[in-house]
Amino acid sequence: MKRYIVVQKYGGSSVANIDRIKAVARRIIATKNNHNHLVVVVSALGDTTDELEALAYKISKDPPEREMDMLMSTGEQISCALLAMAIKERGYDAISLTGPQVGIKTDRMYTKARIETISDRRIRKALGEGKIVVVAGYQGVTCDNEITTLGRGGSDLTAVALAQTLKAKVCEIYTDVEGIYATDPRIVPQAKKIKIITFEEMLEMASLGAQVMQARSIEVAKKFDIPLHVRSSFSKEEGTMIVQKDEKLEDVAVRGITCNKSEAKITICAVPDQTGIAAKIFTEISRAGVSVDTIVQNVSHTKHTDISFTVSKSDLSKALASAKAVAQRIKAGEVISEKKIARISIVGSGMRSHHGIAAKMFQALAENKINIEMIATSEISISCIINQRHAEKAVRSLHQKFELGV
Amino acid sequence: MKRYIVVQKYGGSSVANIDRIKAVARRIIATKNNHNHLVVVVSALGDTTDELEALAYKISKDPPEREMDMLMSTGEQISCALLAMAIKERGYDAISLTGPQVGIKTDRMYTKARIETISDRRIRKALGEGKIVVVAGYQGVTCDNEITTLGRGGSDLTAVALAQTLKAKVCEIYTDVEGIYATDPRIVPQAKKIKIITFEEMLEMASLGAQVMQARSIEVAKKFDIPLHVRSSFSKEEGTMIVQKDEKLEDVAVRGITCNKSEAKITICAVPDQTGIAAKIFTEISRAGVSVDTIVQNVSHTKHTDISFTVSKSDLSKALASAKAVAQRIKAGEVISEKKIARISIVGSGMRSHHGIAAKMFQALAENKINIEMIATSEISISCIINQRHAEKAVRSLHQKFELGV
Repeated sequence: MKRYIVVQKYGGSSVANIDRIKAVARRIIATKNNHNHLVVVVSALGDTTDELEALAYKISKDPPEREMDMLMSTGEQISCALLAMAIKERGYDAISLTGPQVGIKTDRMYTKARIETISDRRIRKALGEGKIVVVAGYQGVTCDNEITTLGRGGSDLTAVALAQTLKAKVCEIYTDVEGIYATDPRIVPQAKKIKIITFEEMLEMASLGAQVMQARSIEVAKKFDIPLHVRSSFSKEEGTMIVQKDEKLEDVAVRGITCNKSEAKITICAVPDQTGIAAKIFTEISRAGVSVDTIVQNVSHTKHTDISFTVSKSDLSKALASAKAVAQRIKAGEVISEKKIARISIVGSGMRSHHGIAAKMFQALAENKINIEMIATSEISISCIINQRHAEKAVRSLHQKFELGV
Repeated sequence: MKRYIVVQKYGGSSVANIDRIKAVARRIIATKNNHNHLVVVVSALGDTTDELEALAYKISKDPPEREMDMLMSTGEQISCALLAMAIKERGYDAISLTGPQVGIKTDRMYTKARIETISDRRIRKALGEGKIVVVAGYQGVTCDNEITTLGRGGSDLTAVALAQTLKAKVCEIYTDVEGIYATDPRIVPQAKKIKIITFEEMLEMASLGAQVMQARSIEVAKKFDIPLHVRSSFSKEEGTMIVQKDEKLEDVAVRGITCNKSEAKITICAVPDQTGIAAKIFTEISRAGVSVDTIVQNVSHTKHTDISFTVSKSDLSKALASAKAVAQRIKAGEVISEKKIARISIVGSGMRSHHGIAAKMFQALAENKINIEMIATSEISISCIINQRHAEKAVRSLHQKFELGV
């Protein structure tokens, strides 16, 4: 049997306590016994990341980012050491490596560093010695030996980037759910697990609020064509394969439905309808360090128009201050905001070739007397911003309308 | 005012929680304001080291040492990051560095590595930029980038070794007591703090059971003549200076009294009195990986003699098995062991020139009807092994006899 490399990544819930670490060790050994070379990437134990962060915030409201990375990177160092111990305890050889030890070189953007290069020397040497390699996720090192982290969900990125460097056959992402669901099972209990989905669709779902995997990792996997297998560490069931689009993959109009309650809406009323006015507004807001999502401006029938846009709730106060300042300068009217909104989106690459998908979506919402406040579309998704209190009803009605439970 | 380098080391109890970390930061800033360059070495927060160790022992009875060091080194990395944050929060520039980042190169003896070289490049650069440098204690890195730790109390060693490398004026060891006491204040409440003590005496006291500082660190400080100042992080009082012997230092016969209950005694009865028999016995026992402390063999009036020796309680079962095996082979008699012993020692470099110190010690014990089971002497100490239940009484009587409370 030919040996190939498998990269597995275990999330924090998969290693939340000693018993789970032992269970993960057993699972890893079972994979190893299939004659594979195995590289395992591990997140911090359960809530360690939150606990470390809480310590820092007890010292400072705005802890320096370099020191944060020094602090936060210890979580994964602990879990990789413990997992290597658990594997060795069962008689298999293993070695833990930190991001710096592997040679995961990043830029200097502390707390959200980007990987620049990865050396495969140390890992290949250990694999050659028959060892199972356990890598601390989420971390790297700059060229001048500073410890960095890759941002929340960064262990996914470590796994995907290692899979690319090592030309792994597959990158398995272990989590506490069975895979990617057509929609959130907490909202629609009969939601089905998606067996196969394209990178493009998964990216769209992630950007629209599905929280299974970090978007950046999916981008990297897409770029280098690394098949991802998202599956549960608590069961042997196959999970969801994320792959490039190919012929075998049925081209459905709607693959999934997402619901995102993390945004807020700002409306600048009575904006003078002049060329370049939108540019003025959004240049100002971007200077405040806020990223804007959906923007809606209706065609103006008078000399004034309303401009609405959404921002992350955490950016709302910054965005509002900035919007009010610019509104005054351009002699616009009132600036109002609304936090109780939800973005409901349908995603599917078949949308490109199927017609009437948008109409069907709006029908479903209308039948349930749900008012649409904003609409936004991409090539493979349609989003409606609605009142947050209708969010669950909207998801259920769309799930039924597009027959995703069948 | 001329700038010089001060190295300070804060132990785990000094940084046991966020409030203490903040207090230590204030203290550091006060030192810095005296126009000094400041390098701070910090231990893991409070019980972190024990907690990490407990996690490992839940996975394995005998966790692999390389993985232990990977795990244990995170404790100091956490505390140095938090302390640097706390200093920066008060408006002073600081930077945390791990042992590997400093360039503390060690051999590969995991869990008890020895420092081989230290680079001063990174620290001097940071000091030159006006930063307070906070170094994670207890850790280093091998030439092939493996993380090592220096053994329990290793942060003291980090501090002393850095003080040597940086030619520091003084190395201050902050702890939760006011300094070194003539004897344990839990036994003798009126015990006095020693103002000044020689390295040699301190080493002797440490090896005989005084637990304030790691012995290896004192050796290094002695070798390179780095004055140590052991003091409390909770008070501004001067603590104990540990220095080379010089004229100013009064040459007292007894500087301190120690009490050590961590040993057990083994007696091999009726050992045939032949040349080389002791060598046979102790070669065997040392092969079992046990180190033996005091050995007593009485002059033999018959063809047989009893040989007694002490070992660490944790080595007792190993030592006993080995002693029984060798006893059988050499046709000796019974092997018996006794765990309830205590070693009571008096230490003082003046012992070399003062006479009658031993006699005075034995008198004090006799006056209190304390039977002496074994006696051992060094150039600057005398130890008696006695029944453990008399330990406190013995210490108190010696404290009085040698007038240490005056």
